[in-house]
Amino acid sequence: MELTADWVVGFVDGEGCFHVSLNRHDEMTAGYQVLPEFVIVQHERDKQILHALKRFFEGGVVRRNHGDRFCLRIRKMSVLQSVVAFFEAHPLKTKKHVDFRKFRRILYLMGQQRHLERDGLLEIIDIAMEMNSTKRPVLEEVKRQLTASG
Amino acid sequence: MELTADWVVGFVDGEGCFHVSLNRHDEMTAGYQVLPEFVIVQHERDKQILHALKRFFEGGVVRRNHGDRFCLRIRKMSVLQSVVAFFEAHPLKTKKHVDFRKFRRILYLMGQQRHLERDGLLEIIDIAMEMNSTKRPVLEEVKRQLTASG
Repeated sequence: MELTADWVVGFVDGEGCFHVSLNRHDEMTAGYQVLPEFVIVQHERDKQILHALKRFFEGGVVRRNHGDRFCLRIRKMSVLQSVVAFFEAHPLKTKKHVDFRKFRRILYLMGQQRHLERDGLLEIIDIAMEMNSTKRPVLEEVKRQLTASG
Repeated sequence: MELTADWVVGFVDGEGCFHVSLNRHDEMTAGYQVLPEFVIVQHERDKQILHALKRFFEGGVVRRNHGDRFCLRIRKMSVLQSVVAFFEAHPLKTKKHVDFRKFRRILYLMGQQRHLERDGLLEIIDIAMEMNSTKRPVLEEVKRQLTASG
């Protein structure tokens, strides 16, 4: 299946999700690992679309999410950088572009190794909390801990 | 906002819905009115996308659906015919194209005035029941009534 850039933008405007979470990770300087990911979930019947998108972005993993849902999940930093470059060249048309810009900013800060220090991590958490996130309570708790330890 | 054909296909692959329902309508020969519609629902923040799609398809109504959800709803037969012509020229890539073909078949049967007779209406109901429909129990009930009266 051949996907065009415009189709991908339209589909991601509908179905794509830019997401940033934190994992406790004692070996990291600031105690947490930042996990940015780009995710697209589809019903099992449209698994082949996820594989086509994986080929399009040249990376990611397609697997069962839960029940009859499958997802394409891109976590590798080099591939996420390509995803960002793609949506810079082909802007999203919905308000999802606001999340995209925050996501891009977080990747930039990580590229600058800012997530390895407390202040940088706090900045990343503040941006992530503004994004459409189901993990807000976790982020708030981490922020509280980091602020208390500072 | 300028929408390209490919973007629209991608977005509708994600967010569009081809839907057919029945309304009790005593003035119709078979007692029911067939209501095909093409619907796209978005969060309020992306209302402007719905208006852009309305301009793109040259028809439809944008209004609040429920809560913070808005929808573009196209019901006018001449506009639905254009929608069908558009997706014939620019095929959907997801399994939604299966629903699209059933929807197109129902529009065709309606164009042939088949929905005005009992047998045609039964054929339309059978197709509509195969579509991704939340109204299946209603369709089954109407089918039972029509079959009993035949």
